[in-house]
Amino acid sequence: MSGPVLAIHGGCGVAPRGGLSDAQERHARGGLKGALRAGWAVLDKGGAALDAVEAAVVALEEHTAFNAGRGAVFNSDGKHEMDAAIMDGRDLSAGAVGGIARVRNPVRAARAVMERTDHVLLIGGGAEALAARAGLELVAPDWFSTEERRASLLQMKALQAKGDASRASERLKHGTVGAVAIDRAGHLAAATSTGGYTNKLPGRVGDTPLIGAGTYANDATLAYSGTGKGEIFIRSVLGHELHARMAYKGESLATACDAMVFGELKRLGGGAGLIAIGRDGAIALPFNTAGMYRGVASDSEGWVSIYDEREPL
Amino acid sequence: MSGPVLAIHGGCGVAPRGGLSDAQERHARGGLKGALRAGWAVLDKGGAALDAVEAAVVALEEHTAFNAGRGAVFNSDGKHEMDAAIMDGRDLSAGAVGGIARVRNPVRAARAVMERTDHVLLIGGGAEALAARAGLELVAPDWFSTEERRASLLQMKALQAKGDASRASERLKHGTVGAVAIDRAGHLAAATSTGGYTNKLPGRVGDTPLIGAGTYANDATLAYSGTGKGEIFIRSVLGHELHARMAYKGESLATACDAMVFGELKRLGGGAGLIAIGRDGAIALPFNTAGMYRGVASDSEGWVSIYDEREPL
Repeated sequence: MSGPVLAIHGGCGVAPRGGLSDAQERHARGGLKGALRAGWAVLDKGGAALDAVEAAVVALEEHTAFNAGRGAVFNSDGKHEMDAAIMDGRDLSAGAVGGIARVRNPVRAARAVMERTDHVLLIGGGAEALAARAGLELVAPDWFSTEERRASLLQMKALQAKGDASRASERLKHGTVGAVAIDRAGHLAAATSTGGYTNKLPGRVGDTPLIGAGTYANDATLAYSGTGKGEIFIRSVLGHELHARMAYKGESLATACDAMVFGELKRLGGGAGLIAIGRDGAIALPFNTAGMYRGVASDSEGWVSIYDEREPL
Repeated sequence: MSGPVLAIHGGCGVAPRGGLSDAQERHARGGLKGALRAGWAVLDKGGAALDAVEAAVVALEEHTAFNAGRGAVFNSDGKHEMDAAIMDGRDLSAGAVGGIARVRNPVRAARAVMERTDHVLLIGGGAEALAARAGLELVAPDWFSTEERRASLLQMKALQAKGDASRASERLKHGTVGAVAIDRAGHLAAATSTGGYTNKLPGRVGDTPLIGAGTYANDATLAYSGTGKGEIFIRSVLGHELHARMAYKGESLATACDAMVFGELKRLGGGAGLIAIGRDGAIALPFNTAGMYRGVASDSEGWVSIYDEREPL
């Protein structure tokens, strides 16, 4: 049994190397470091993986560099509709929200669904009402808005008008944040949060809040959080596919993750990345795009990265 | 290769034998027969499994005996919020809707999402707007209402007020409709539609529209549609679990389905049933409740059932 491990991502929707200014890279790496520290503080003092992934995702939601919470993208109506999920590998309990616009930290709303209702997934106004009853902070929808994301919406609409929407960059299109962890007791947990993708249809829900698609944790195998073209993850039921490959085919975490990210998902046409931790503490962080905002913290290592560099925590 | 096969269900939320009047049983069996005939007409003339499951589910949605479309249950606000999904086993394409209230046939809205958008899941007003653009019929929300379901809501609220909601009967709680088929070309498809369960929180989305949970089809293994306590199906990722047991553990359709319905799902505390057809035409219809509205049509058999009887088509 290894010690606790935390891995996070801020999405694989990254500009090719050189496409981000130094200031933008610093801003994003700072956000990753803050989230790692928030989650690691929980694990390091013996806390639960579930609490660690929530703390890390809350920090990423609060940071404007990432497409979740503040900094969420705009849909085709110029509005934010956010999705989030959290899952506890101990007993497969899970909570998720879809299409919410007023809860400051969507991952906290997901946890409220898990802990305060008999349901797993609540959407829209019903989810916001539950969050309010749980005492979570509600904000005005424009609290999430940033100038950069508004510019992305205008760019996407311009590309769409020219029939070139499919040529939009990964950076323009999407982004997600997530965290996976194993705690000292050996329990696994995962959480994911997203604004979806720029110019999506109103009402579109991606893979993030779908248990087994964008988010999955099972103490028998792994904790997983995905990022990329969500519809491909839904059709592949990616999180549960990784679980099944490990549980029933005997594949290692690395083999299962690589097979899907560089094989099946690429074949289905999707820019894709994921973070995963196995029950033995193994870490996998594959992506088939130019980069993926990511980071790892454990007793033996601590670093963040966008491309193939490693910057110490 | 066998000929085409169609199986349908109208939910495992059934009163214990003797709890339905003769008239209620006849009404439900009539609805099952109509849906089987509608789906079989497609398959028998060489049509696609995808068209057959849609036709069968539309017929079940139109029939008031079942909790989908007309006859949908009420949520705790006294409103209908319906979910549906459809999946094509040929290429894993899928469409789904959640929390809709104005589309006469939710399964048709799910198909519109699959065929007319880049998305898999649309919810609420966004899904209804897409359905309208697709030319589907919209109706007033009370079009779905029936006196029987209103009585069920009052009963559930009374039980809840006494703290006895967990003792509600399966019949009172839930219900779903679904269809699975294999066509002459050997392609598999599945569709599911539901009103959720009586007195659910506003915004609750169950397993039905979650690909891999309540609905799944993959030409490599099976087509599946579930019915029961949806949250258990979500946490188990039931449809994809059945696929993985067949693809990676080499289990037969019957072994996989029985292991989950009589083992895992029962352990997680859920009344559950499902219908499934394997790539070889094998049929499985297990349920762990008192009964399940169901039926089968093929070149060699045609029947409907609620308990353990078989009434010829």
